[in-house]
Amino acid sequence: MFGTEREFVRWLQRQAPARAPGVRLGIGDDAALVEIRRGCELILTTDLSIEGVHFLPHLHPPRAVGHRALARSLSDVAAMGGTPRYALISMAISARTSRAWLKEFYAGVFALAQRFAVTVVGGDAAFVPGRMLIDVTVAGEVKRGKAIRRSGACPGDQLFVSGRLGLSALGLRWTQMKANAAHLPKRTGWPELAKREMHDAFRAHFYPEPRCALGLFLSEKNLASSLIDLSDGLSTDLTRLCEASNVGARVWADRIPVPDIPAGSKPGSLRAMDLALNGGEDYELLFSVPPRKAAQITDIFKGVPLHCIGEISRSKDILLVLPNGKPAPLSAAGYDHFAKVSSMSRGHGAKSR
Amino acid sequence: MFGTEREFVRWLQRQAPARAPGVRLGIGDDAALVEIRRGCELILTTDLSIEGVHFLPHLHPPRAVGHRALARSLSDVAAMGGTPRYALISMAISARTSRAWLKEFYAGVFALAQRFAVTVVGGDAAFVPGRMLIDVTVAGEVKRGKAIRRSGACPGDQLFVSGRLGLSALGLRWTQMKANAAHLPKRTGWPELAKREMHDAFRAHFYPEPRCALGLFLSEKNLASSLIDLSDGLSTDLTRLCEASNVGARVWADRIPVPDIPAGSKPGSLRAMDLALNGGEDYELLFSVPPRKAAQITDIFKGVPLHCIGEISRSKDILLVLPNGKPAPLSAAGYDHFAKVSSMSRGHGAKSR
Repeated sequence: MFGTEREFVRWLQRQAPARAPGVRLGIGDDAALVEIRRGCELILTTDLSIEGVHFLPHLHPPRAVGHRALARSLSDVAAMGGTPRYALISMAISARTSRAWLKEFYAGVFALAQRFAVTVVGGDAAFVPGRMLIDVTVAGEVKRGKAIRRSGACPGDQLFVSGRLGLSALGLRWTQMKANAAHLPKRTGWPELAKREMHDAFRAHFYPEPRCALGLFLSEKNLASSLIDLSDGLSTDLTRLCEASNVGARVWADRIPVPDIPAGSKPGSLRAMDLALNGGEDYELLFSVPPRKAAQITDIFKGVPLHCIGEISRSKDILLVLPNGKPAPLSAAGYDHFAKVSSMSRGHGAKSR
Repeated sequence: MFGTEREFVRWLQRQAPARAPGVRLGIGDDAALVEIRRGCELILTTDLSIEGVHFLPHLHPPRAVGHRALARSLSDVAAMGGTPRYALISMAISARTSRAWLKEFYAGVFALAQRFAVTVVGGDAAFVPGRMLIDVTVAGEVKRGKAIRRSGACPGDQLFVSGRLGLSALGLRWTQMKANAAHLPKRTGWPELAKREMHDAFRAHFYPEPRCALGLFLSEKNLASSLIDLSDGLSTDLTRLCEASNVGARVWADRIPVPDIPAGSKPGSLRAMDLALNGGEDYELLFSVPPRKAAQITDIFKGVPLHCIGEISRSKDILLVLPNGKPAPLSAAGYDHFAKVSSMSRGHGAKSR
């Protein structure tokens, strides 16, 4: 089988026939970009959410499952600089699912959809004997020629991220520890997070906020040369951006906005930098900006902090510059669906996928 | 939980917020119809194909699984009178799946896509420990105001179907019998089908042909007052069309184009009329035509026979008029995903779903 998702995607690209005229962007980016009629460009994206892989029934409330399932696709549209408009929800419903669960699930979907002026226009549903599976498709629009791809980063461009990274993984890990602690003879010492950080981490994981307004701003003002959303961790998504753009990057470790975890925390999996680099499910945006436009990127955009964390380099290496000034190779250690059959028993830290 | 799919869809319609301005047709028809920009209407549809429910690994070659998964969505676009353009394929891949299986699966998808000038522009993929699941989304186009809904049938309209009904169910059942017979001490007497019928039944089940050209013709010429594709059996899909249009129908049993099964065939499940009414997966079109336009419906459209099988009535009853002239109520006895947790162990005749 395929060793990595990238291998699968490349294989699939080879199987596919030559690109049709109306296709601006096909298999391999955050979303597809197609022309329906002259001047009318459409973004199409689809995302699976699988019980036991993307969510855990005992940990994720159904409202959060619905929110997250839709948020993943909205984030893909944000990562193209587009505006999401319509959603389709396909559900393979487990026989164990109650009507109350479904009600809450759809409440989560509809609440997020309304906030983003997205309409759920259809879907499909079937019962399955096994795990539940949800597939969300979103169609969005973008002005002709305004979509931002992964592939436009140039040497010298500055690299920005929105929000703070690793919060989602912290939120999940913290919730898991709390759930486990109930069964343990004594507390095994997870860190006392500040109340505000706990709240932020919880929201980041269970109710992530797609950065559609930021994506649209970058597209309308023509500011970003490349754009991707951080779904599988900075290390993995930066690698994807660099590969698509045929460049490398240098990232300054001390500029990465990591979670605020008190020093002396025992569990090794809660190291802030590891969560930020490899935790995944942040649904923040990572984008490159040509130097002459970098001054137009403000510190905060509509309440969301923006951080310059590095720069694009001609050399293909992706380097993490440590606080002591030494560069270390930054390899893609975020989530990969093809690296192993996914399950919660994977040893891979704070992941619900 | 929900007793029927209809119950689920109605429940879901109640959960959903009020319809947004750009939505021409939301949850509940063959596909959604939305306006992306003024004058640019888009058809969106999505269909699940689940291992053990919609296909059987030991019976369905991977090429047929790919073909059928895409054909289901193309047929939904045909049922709106639209032209399919782009497809997204989401795959939850079982750990047991080989690369050879995937190659054949995508060969089936791409071959059908190319024949219909549809481009696969993306998707999602993840490994799952359990059954394989495929979700295909198709975006299509239709001229503004030209889409044909389920809901426009009027009393007096004539009712037409394309092709022949029940062939797909016959093809599956025949293949299953043949597979089982290999393990039986002696043949239990399934009918000797004519070679041509066997071929037609096999193709109808494993490689169904979506009726996109016919749907487009009906839409462009403004001929049909309502249109639906026969995915779950004539009895069920006619009931859906009548409910949406708030009408009833009379269908003449001897006008239904049933499979050609020799008299004296033993297995009761192979009664031609039962297969035609309830077999499902025909992916033919069922449409109503106002009397003054009925003469424009030819006997054969591009090689596909068209049959007038009945008429729409003001009374809400759906009746099957038997050859002796007696009307009998025709109740929806086709496939319903919500009637029971679907599995191949269901006693429901010739279904792979």
